[in-house]
This record gives sequence, structure tokens and C-alpha cells, in this order.
Amino acid sequence: MEYLHIGLAALGAGLAVIGAAIGVGKIGGSAMDAIARQPEASGKIQTAMIIAAALVEGVALFGVVAALLGVLTVPA
Amino acid sequence: MEYLHIGLAALGAGLAVIGAAIGVGKIGGSAMDAIARQPEASGKIQTAMIIAAALVEGVALFGVVAALLGVLTVPA
Amino acid sequence: MEYLHIGLAALGAGLAVIGAAIGVGKIGGSAMDAIARQPEASGKIQTAMIIAAALVEGVALFGVVAALLGVLTVPA
Amino acid sequence: MEYLHIGLAALGAGLAVIGAAIGVGKIGGSAMDAIARQPEASGKIQTAMIIAAALVEGVALFGVVAALLGVLTVPA
Amino acid sequence: MEYLHIGLAALGAGLAVIGAAIGVGKIGGSAMDAIARQPEASGKIQTAMIIAAALVEGVALFGVVAALLGVLTVPA
Repeated sequence: MEYLHIGLAALGAGLAVIGAAIGVGKIGGSAMDAIARQPEASGKIQTAMIIAAALVEGVALFGVVAALLGVLTVPA
Repeated sequence: MEYLHIGLAALGAGLAVIGAAIGVGKIGGSAMDAIARQPEASGKIQTAMIIAAALVEGVALFGVVAALLGVLTVPA
Repeated sequence: MEYLHIGLAALGAGLAVIGAAIGVGKIGGSAMDAIARQPEASGKIQTAMIIAAALVEGVALFGVVAALLGVLTVPA
Repeated sequence: MEYLHIGLAALGAGLAVIGAAIGVGKIGGSAMDAIARQPEASGKIQTAMIIAAALVEGVALFGVVAALLGVLTVPA
Repeated sequence: MEYLHIGLAALGAGLAVIGAAIGVGKIGGSAMDAIARQPEASGKIQTAMIIAAALVEGVALFGVVAALLGVLTVPA
């Protein structure tokens, strides 16, 4: 059971990806609907989409890196 | 089982990312809908979006750092 | 199992972030909808949004600090 | 297992934050909708929002303090 | 139970794929609806779709690599 933490850390990486996907998916999906309703405002919508998605992406990459450090902690 | 806490901490990082994504996703998705409905108010909407998303982001980064400290606590 | 509490505390930090995100996300999302419906009332809406979000933020940061103290309790 | 209670107490702090966030989020979100519908009643709405949110906040801070006391109980 | 972490890491890879699928699925589905509603705006919609999907894809591939490293950690 000495290596069990590696598996749990990989599960944590998976949870972080689910999180990122829920967030970026919701933002991106709403952006599509918004561009379809107001195609002439697509520039403003895309700017706001990238700002919001980048905020999710930053935390998510940080969380996956934290999980990756857990995966790489091999018992001596 | 000496390293089990590392795996649990990585799971905690994943939970924090899920949280951040739910919050920023909801804020960003509503911002897209709002810009599509009132493109001329996109400046005000974007300001409010960044304020609200930054509040989520601050707690989320703090939570991921707390989890990261748990991952880096290697038994001596 | 001596370090198990560190992992559980990191899970607690993740739960606190999920909480903050649900709350601020709901408040921020409604604020976006409200500004889109009444752009001329955006000042009043933004004030109320920041008050409500700050109440969530205060409890959430307090909870993450409590979890952080748990992470930093290294057995002597 | 001597320190296990610290991790469980931190989990309790996280649960308390989730509770507070659901409550204040619901109150704040409805307040936004209400201000958008009746911008001229924003003063009354904001007063009621702060009273209701403060009631949730009081219990939540009390719960986080209880969890914090559990985190700070270090075995001698 | 020495190899249990390999199975958990593979579960983590599965969670990461579920995450990516939720995110890209939501973005792609909304893009289809959007193109169907505004076929003349399909260029703008496709650009925004690729940006949003690439953000999900980046985190997801990173998470699967983290899980793969966990699968490849064979006890010595």
C-alpha cells in the first residue's frame, strides 16, 4: 500500500480536469449561444470568454501540477 | 500508508479546482448571455464579471496552495 | 497513518473553495443577468453584489485558513 | 491516528463554508433579481439582504470557529 | 495490494477523459446549435469553438499524462 498515494494523486488530477471542463465548457457553450444571437458582438463576447476561461485555466493547471507533484513523490 | 496524506491532498486540490470552475463558469456563462442581450453594456458587465471571478479565484488559489503544502509534506 | 490528518485538512480546504464558488457564482451570475436587464442600475447592483460576495468570501477565507492550520500541524 | 481529529475538524470547516455559501448565495442572487425588477426599491432590498445574510453568516462563523478549535487541539 | 495505485491512476485517467468530454461536448454541442441558428456566422462560431475546446484539451492532456506517470510507477 506504499504507493497508494500515487493513485489518489492521479485521481485528484482527474478531478481537476473535470473541474476545468465544467467551467470552460459552461463559458464556451454560453459564448456560442451569445455569438449566434448577436453575431456583430462576437469580438466583445470572445474577449470576455477568453478572460473568464483563462481564470479557470490558471487554477486548473495549478491543481494538476499539485497532483503531478503527488504522483512523482516516490517512496525512498 | 505513510504517504497516504499526499494523495488525499492532491484530491483536495482537485476539489478546489472543481469549485473554482463551478463559480467562474457560472459567472462567465451569465456574462456571455448578458453581453448578447445588451451588447452596449458590455463594459459594465465585463467589470462586474472580473470583480466576481476574482473573488472566486482568490479563495481557489489559496485552497490549491493549502493542498500543495499538504502534497509537499514528505515524512522525514 | 501519522500524517493522514494533513490530507483530510487539504480535502477540507477543497470543500471550502467549492462552497465559496457556489455562493459567489450564484451571486455573480444573477448580477450579470440583472445588469443586462437594467443597465442603468448597474451601480446599485454592483454594490449589492460586492456586499453579498464579501460575506461569502469572509467565511470561506476563514475556513481555508482553518484547513491550512490543519495542514501545517506536523507531528513532532 | 493520534492527529486524525485535526483533519476531520478541517473537513467540518469546509462543510460549514459550503452551507454558508449556499445560503448567502441564494439570498444574494435573489436580491440581484429584485433590484433589477425594482431599481427604485434597492435600498429596502439591500437592507433585507444584509439582515438575512448576517443571520447565515453568524451561524457559519460560529461553526468555523468550532472546527478551528478542533484543529488547534494538539495532543500533548 | 502493492499495485493498487496503478488501478487508481487509471481511474484518474478515466475521470480526466470524462471531464474533457463534458467540456468539449458542451462547447461543440452549443456550436452546432449556434451554426444552425446563424449559418452565416459559422466562421466566427468555429473560431470561438476551437479556442474554448483547446483550453479544455490542454488541461485534459496534462491530467492524462499525470495519470499515465502514476500507471508507469512500478514498485521496485
